[in-house]
Amino acid sequence: MPNGLDEQDAAADRDPQPGVTPGPGPLMAIGGAEDKLGKRTVLASFVEHAGGEHARIAVVPTASSLGPEVVEVYDALFRKLGAADVIAARPETREEANDPGLVARLDTVTGIFMTGGNQLKLSAVISGTAFGDAIKAAHERGVVVAGTSAGASIQSSHMVAFGPGGQTPKQRMTQVAAGLGLVDSCVIDQHFGQRNRYGRLLMIVAQSPSLLGIGVDEDTAAVITHTGGEDLLTVEGRGAVTIFDGRAIVSNAHEARKTAPLLASGVVMHVLPEGSVFDLTERRLVRQQAEVDPSEAEELAVAGRDLRRLARDIAAGDVSPTQLRRRRARQHPEGERA
Amino acid sequence: MPNGLDEQDAAADRDPQPGVTPGPGPLMAIGGAEDKLGKRTVLASFVEHAGGEHARIAVVPTASSLGPEVVEVYDALFRKLGAADVIAARPETREEANDPGLVARLDTVTGIFMTGGNQLKLSAVISGTAFGDAIKAAHERGVVVAGTSAGASIQSSHMVAFGPGGQTPKQRMTQVAAGLGLVDSCVIDQHFGQRNRYGRLLMIVAQSPSLLGIGVDEDTAAVITHTGGEDLLTVEGRGAVTIFDGRAIVSNAHEARKTAPLLASGVVMHVLPEGSVFDLTERRLVRQQAEVDPSEAEELAVAGRDLRRLARDIAAGDVSPTQLRRRRARQHPEGERA
Repeated sequence: MPNGLDEQDAAADRDPQPGVTPGPGPLMAIGGAEDKLGKRTVLASFVEHAGGEHARIAVVPTASSLGPEVVEVYDALFRKLGAADVIAARPETREEANDPGLVARLDTVTGIFMTGGNQLKLSAVISGTAFGDAIKAAHERGVVVAGTSAGASIQSSHMVAFGPGGQTPKQRMTQVAAGLGLVDSCVIDQHFGQRNRYGRLLMIVAQSPSLLGIGVDEDTAAVITHTGGEDLLTVEGRGAVTIFDGRAIVSNAHEARKTAPLLASGVVMHVLPEGSVFDLTERRLVRQQAEVDPSEAEELAVAGRDLRRLARDIAAGDVSPTQLRRRRARQHPEGERA
Repeated sequence: MPNGLDEQDAAADRDPQPGVTPGPGPLMAIGGAEDKLGKRTVLASFVEHAGGEHARIAVVPTASSLGPEVVEVYDALFRKLGAADVIAARPETREEANDPGLVARLDTVTGIFMTGGNQLKLSAVISGTAFGDAIKAAHERGVVVAGTSAGASIQSSHMVAFGPGGQTPKQRMTQVAAGLGLVDSCVIDQHFGQRNRYGRLLMIVAQSPSLLGIGVDEDTAAVITHTGGEDLLTVEGRGAVTIFDGRAIVSNAHEARKTAPLLASGVVMHVLPEGSVFDLTERRLVRQQAEVDPSEAEELAVAGRDLRRLARDIAAGDVSPTQLRRRRARQHPEGERA
């Protein structure tokens, strides 16, 4: 990492790394259990974002209790998906997370992948350390930072610490800790549909209506990009991303008894399947072209041609209604189209 | 039941039945598994609505595959809770549901309770029969109509027929059938939190945004009353009632592939615990007095008295700041309150 202004300027003048676009890189918050044997939509997208054949990926398995085994799995997967290189960076204590040698491993990567496990362990080990800062710096210089499960939760400024599943939000059912802050003003939850985490995410939004609640299903990614001053969230993968916007909420979160169901009235919800784009700044769906049915489009084009022909015929005054009917019958024999 | 206009007028002139308030009666949509051994909040409320010691209750166990056994349980419960009389009315075929003798059993009741089971069976047997009409007529003349589980679903104009649990709304995961229509423009789902039915209720709202989605948790009732031209929903019991308002929805429900997650953006959600009141016509929470902390109120009252005393003293010009400090110290020795 640069030590002074001169070196930073020099770094800015250097050509960007192959596989990295200058400016803040994309974030991928993956809801856990991403497909590893089939279409691998989410993992392939990550390798692509990391530069494809130029990808040099650091796997951070700190959240997991199975460090080397987890790295082995992702090493094989990312190489199979075309990545040039995969390295491990596994601080297990805050001391290790401040070790310059370990931190330097992130200097040349084009992608960082944080595995699942326990997000409180991940946060306890790396938040506020040189290693945590290096992940943020890598994100700032264009590196894609992805995380699955615990590795997704830690990306936001506010992190779900833990808490049970269940649909109904209840007082004190979950707790918030500080995440890495790669994205502000939101809280990311994962295994969302599969572990029934509506309640705990709603509880957080009820207590902290300034935070946007983002729930990511398994084998699904919320891909956050910063382009032209806009923070956009695009959904990739098999499930959905659910968003709770509590700006207009009416709640009793400041006075409800422990374990009591919470009042949370007026929450605006967005359930977003693959391909949806959501504007995180304006907190609204980016409308997309409606799908066009090709047979309907063709029929409309034919009708348009017929109408222009009819107009020409009428203008020329050379056609009787009977002639017109006969000509049309020749052009479109009955029953040709429904 | 009255056969002609004269008899209807005569009926209108008669005193209302004891335990029945004239005008449409309350509806109670209970989310299933209502407490039968402990506080029995929901069942006690039903007996109360039915007239308490004047209550004469018809149990309709048609949805259930265990007719007499179910009646026995509710018979014992309602009598224990103070009801004067409990009868069974169990049509098992549409023929029976058109039998005048069976239908007449509802003429003198003050409450109707539809048990759980299979709502499609209940709807298939009673919808559009004399028995179904008699339930509606009873509701119109002020009788409370309650139903738990299947008996809750059938009350609305549109009924969830069946479908799996799961949080993410997916295309064709559930189906709608016609309910009794005691309440219009909504669809009621039950065992809502416990069986994770967000997805299927959202799918229905995405396809039919004119319907308000109402999900009722177990041991919880959505009590719908019609007063002063307003339809109000009040929550009773241990869980919450969740409402999905799709008026502003953006959805791809008309074109999504089968089993694909649905786009449902801009749904306004209300999670309502016990005591909440929701205006079904305006589709908004009825704001209630905030709870007042008694110690805070007392402190404020004391401060108000002190200030008035101070103003009098200043107006009289008979007090120095030092005297005032001493007097206040005598009145409120340090540490008396936090």
